[in-house]
Amino acid sequence: MNEQQHFDVAVVGATGAVGQQMLKTLEQRDFPIKSLKLLSSKRSAGKQITFKGQSYTVEEATPESFQGVQLALFSAGGSVSKALVPEAIKHGAVCVDNTSAFRMDADVPLVVPEVNESDLRNHQGVIANPNCSTIQMVVALEPIRKKLGLKKVIVSTYQAVSGAGLEAVEEMEKQTRAILDGKEATAEVLPVAKEKRHYQIAFNAIPQIDVFQDNGYTFEEMKMINETKKIMHMPELEVAATCVRLPIETGHSESIYFETEQSGASVKEIQALLSEAPGITLQDNPAKQLYPLVTNAVGKNDVFVGRVRRDLDRDNGYHAWVVSDNLLKGAAWNSVQIAESLIKLNLLNK
Amino acid sequence: MNEQQHFDVAVVGATGAVGQQMLKTLEQRDFPIKSLKLLSSKRSAGKQITFKGQSYTVEEATPESFQGVQLALFSAGGSVSKALVPEAIKHGAVCVDNTSAFRMDADVPLVVPEVNESDLRNHQGVIANPNCSTIQMVVALEPIRKKLGLKKVIVSTYQAVSGAGLEAVEEMEKQTRAILDGKEATAEVLPVAKEKRHYQIAFNAIPQIDVFQDNGYTFEEMKMINETKKIMHMPELEVAATCVRLPIETGHSESIYFETEQSGASVKEIQALLSEAPGITLQDNPAKQLYPLVTNAVGKNDVFVGRVRRDLDRDNGYHAWVVSDNLLKGAAWNSVQIAESLIKLNLLNK
Repeated sequence: MNEQQHFDVAVVGATGAVGQQMLKTLEQRDFPIKSLKLLSSKRSAGKQITFKGQSYTVEEATPESFQGVQLALFSAGGSVSKALVPEAIKHGAVCVDNTSAFRMDADVPLVVPEVNESDLRNHQGVIANPNCSTIQMVVALEPIRKKLGLKKVIVSTYQAVSGAGLEAVEEMEKQTRAILDGKEATAEVLPVAKEKRHYQIAFNAIPQIDVFQDNGYTFEEMKMINETKKIMHMPELEVAATCVRLPIETGHSESIYFETEQSGASVKEIQALLSEAPGITLQDNPAKQLYPLVTNAVGKNDVFVGRVRRDLDRDNGYHAWVVSDNLLKGAAWNSVQIAESLIKLNLLNK
Repeated sequence: MNEQQHFDVAVVGATGAVGQQMLKTLEQRDFPIKSLKLLSSKRSAGKQITFKGQSYTVEEATPESFQGVQLALFSAGGSVSKALVPEAIKHGAVCVDNTSAFRMDADVPLVVPEVNESDLRNHQGVIANPNCSTIQMVVALEPIRKKLGLKKVIVSTYQAVSGAGLEAVEEMEKQTRAILDGKEATAEVLPVAKEKRHYQIAFNAIPQIDVFQDNGYTFEEMKMINETKKIMHMPELEVAATCVRLPIETGHSESIYFETEQSGASVKEIQALLSEAPGITLQDNPAKQLYPLVTNAVGKNDVFVGRVRRDLDRDNGYHAWVVSDNLLKGAAWNSVQIAESLIKLNLLNK
């Protein structure tokens, strides 16, 4: 990291679930900030937020907000990014966008530093941060792909409500209390706030995250499929996903089946690849009941991998259980990590 | 059903989570009972249980309890079944056993009536009721297998705590209240009561159900794999499972990927097969956000299937979401259904 230069930074969506984690992460990483602007919707403007002991007033994000900004971290929804990222770029800022607005654009790098950091070199002012459930999966699969190749991936997710924002977390807690007290639970937010029907998430499992596409897959599932291929530069990779929302506050889990190009690697070989890879903590000892758990992963930056075992039918098939904090590696930490890589590669001033 | 004959029935494990559902189901089905014996461990003996408005005293199950019993429904744990099923058979009873004690014995039929009712004809005094998570999967897959053949199944489960008994349900509720009140949660029951380590289930996902085997799979996962092959008479079927416990009281969900022998069937064709099959309710309309949910399935006997969609890479690959009440079709209802089939096929007095 450049030890001298400090940067003018803006955080867009500073009051949201991810925005708050971004500020915490910038603080923890001692990110080289010269000036900090906290931006939000009109509704949240005026709020006070403390960063490194200093109080900041949240301002409404407008095209003019980006004057003098070198780095803008966006996490305020796709429509905000679509409207304001181009404005920020006009003002010379480099944007790291945590929404799906630009992820699949051919000229926008979609980056998980452990996998494709060098794609940052092609940025045109905006770098997309992948979907939370995609990030933890590609971090876990990359060391295996590098050594053994990768042919097929089938993932079923176990996703936390904080991925749908603070309102969803509040809804879950309210419903849970109501049910424990024998009262009726009402649903207004999940599975998708803007959709017609809402279902109870407390003590339930909802197989819908984001809206349905014409092919019967949800947008969340298609994000995992398409983003994985793009990040890994493998349009030919077979990927399938089923995404499910669960009554967990924070922390996504994934049951992943994958087939490698090369056959016959042992579980020990796979475990060795994982334990040496960046950003991964291997937690895999069935005899000691050691495996990744949401309750251990929350608040940490790593991706936790365990329950690695061979498929009983195919010589190139394996199963694994992958857990990570969806607000950190799945969002805030990956965004800040991208920013750190931009500085390291001297790409923030180009 | 035989309209005249009534039977002397015993329920072993009458005070447990499944035993209570068995009694409710026998009542609802107006099962032809001449006499009813409620049996349990010494600890629960003496309790009073009401059945069809009549009060019964629960008795300790001993070898002598089965004198005069024609049908014995067992759901009191594997060790009880191992000890007492042979005694019940000596007394002439036909036993339907809801534990894993005899499931894989070559001379014991393992039966899901919608799939292999005719296997009942080979019984030698005991019929095994499969594992809850197996039952709902084979019910959903059977109509597809019949028409299109079946090559490969990969399932990830989303299982409720009631499958681990009433103590597990109580533990989850206690932990949930504690966490909502900002207190510490303690764990003593889940994932497996007799294991060394226990983990919080509230707001968590535990990728361990039952104990680990030497191959890295849990016993629950191996049950799904081996039982599916046995019930479907397909030792060559490729089956893989990852079983996960979740903070849901009752109702198991399953994300199932399957490959058929015959390629190219449309989603509509698969849906038609499912909607005509016995024991299945098809709930599959993404445009209307209609898909199976635990909260709708609990208290019902059917297996609910939805989110049927084609794999995007393989012409014979499909994905589906399957939900059922683990205490009913997964246990009590399937056992009573087996008993009804035994009467229908005149196999209770053989």
